[in-house]
Amino acid sequence: MSEKKSGHLVIIGGAEDKEGECQILRRFFQLAGEREAKIAILSTASTEPQAGEQYRQIFLDMGAAEVKVLAVHSREVTNQAQYREIFAKQSGIFFTGGDQLRITGILGGSVLGKALISSYRRGAVIAGTSAGAAAMSETMLVGGADDATPSKEIIRMAPGLGLLREAVIDQHFAQRGRIGRLLAVVAHNPYIVGIGIDEDTAVIVDGAGRCEVVGSGTVTIVDGLEVTHSNVSESSLDQPLALTNVRLHILAKGYKYNLPKRIAETPQTKEDI
Amino acid sequence: MSEKKSGHLVIIGGAEDKEGECQILRRFFQLAGEREAKIAILSTASTEPQAGEQYRQIFLDMGAAEVKVLAVHSREVTNQAQYREIFAKQSGIFFTGGDQLRITGILGGSVLGKALISSYRRGAVIAGTSAGAAAMSETMLVGGADDATPSKEIIRMAPGLGLLREAVIDQHFAQRGRIGRLLAVVAHNPYIVGIGIDEDTAVIVDGAGRCEVVGSGTVTIVDGLEVTHSNVSESSLDQPLALTNVRLHILAKGYKYNLPKRIAETPQTKEDI
Repeated sequence: MSEKKSGHLVIIGGAEDKEGECQILRRFFQLAGEREAKIAILSTASTEPQAGEQYRQIFLDMGAAEVKVLAVHSREVTNQAQYREIFAKQSGIFFTGGDQLRITGILGGSVLGKALISSYRRGAVIAGTSAGAAAMSETMLVGGADDATPSKEIIRMAPGLGLLREAVIDQHFAQRGRIGRLLAVVAHNPYIVGIGIDEDTAVIVDGAGRCEVVGSGTVTIVDGLEVTHSNVSESSLDQPLALTNVRLHILAKGYKYNLPKRIAETPQTKEDI
Repeated sequence: MSEKKSGHLVIIGGAEDKEGECQILRRFFQLAGEREAKIAILSTASTEPQAGEQYRQIFLDMGAAEVKVLAVHSREVTNQAQYREIFAKQSGIFFTGGDQLRITGILGGSVLGKALISSYRRGAVIAGTSAGAAAMSETMLVGGADDATPSKEIIRMAPGLGLLREAVIDQHFAQRGRIGRLLAVVAHNPYIVGIGIDEDTAVIVDGAGRCEVVGSGTVTIVDGLEVTHSNVSESSLDQPLALTNVRLHILAKGYKYNLPKRIAETPQTKEDI
């Protein structure tokens, strides 16, 4: 199903370890080329001027050849031609957290936004944490209620960056009780795989749509392909959504999920568990 | 930008002429192969058992080789293997109006839904009116307020069928005063082209993303690619959205819009106007 040739996505559920082994950030660093890595950190999702600095220091400490923070916080600057050159050289791009609507609202369709997508198609690895994770799909969650019964009114969606097909991401997943909102997304269109990522946990997606779980929590996969009944079109905005025959997977570190084939795979070697 | 090899989309703003010249329906009939046309009408969006019958009669009167109504109104039946064979033979598929959430909720990811998308990739023409139009894009509008100031709370979006990339459709456009909600969509991600289609008006999209307007009304194109500022991420749900440097086109019959290049084209010959 995927037309991607190369490039990986590292989709992080937020609050990833930044002081210990940094398993998730280290995997991104490795995928970006280790000591040859040229990394750009995009702090667009955040309104804090210093957002991105901590990541810059971490990747420099790991030994990356070059790390820069692109503090792009308004749409006015995103059409500068220089961004084509900058992104042509990056091997890794990292989106900080904040608000996913800042990412699409500021970058969507701009010279920078398009250069970023070209980078990915060319093979660069794109990582995002929290809001940076949410923005990666074609249609993204922009907000919703936590710890809530699934209903149409508890979620809000919008067009995302389009790097990930067939799926919608949710983050801070177990920590904020978000299964209700992910089920609501899948009810809207059971073709979509809902991917709920816990804090300090990530999904690494390769060019063929194979997803691998890393980090200390779990990833919840909500697959609606076999749904036989839902009341999504009849229910009012605040009525509970009913949905039968959802397939659910809870995957920990080392487990994989084949997105085009919709198959969960257990770890092949014991030390992966 | 488009990966489509063939197939046309006929995206109709609702309330198309069914008794006079039937310009729009006739164009669909022609694209489907005229006297060799094998047409399936999908009335999934509607809850009326007779929805689709009038279209069946119209296409039979035009001379189509075969016209059937697929009255698929619950998800339970959409996984029957027969739909693969049925859709392998169709040259045209027509979605009636109703509720776009019924289309994605019932068909999304099912055997029927996937067979339909294969049909399109193979070259079949897919038409949809009103709700059938709205469902065609990757992210679709599922509802919103008419005659309203753009704000986040006036619209609701969800993942659509994904036949049309880079765009979101709105229908009954001038008749229901929907420019506010289309601007709100584009504010969420200026990469998206908002296409507002009046009643008795359609956009025909070819495999390369070139759009042609047919019918008696106009098509409004909202292009956010040059937007220099928006307040979409700072504004609360009910606050008015601000958006600067939107490019707008109002296109009548015979005008074209090149979606990948974002260029409006005037009619080349006088009789087209």
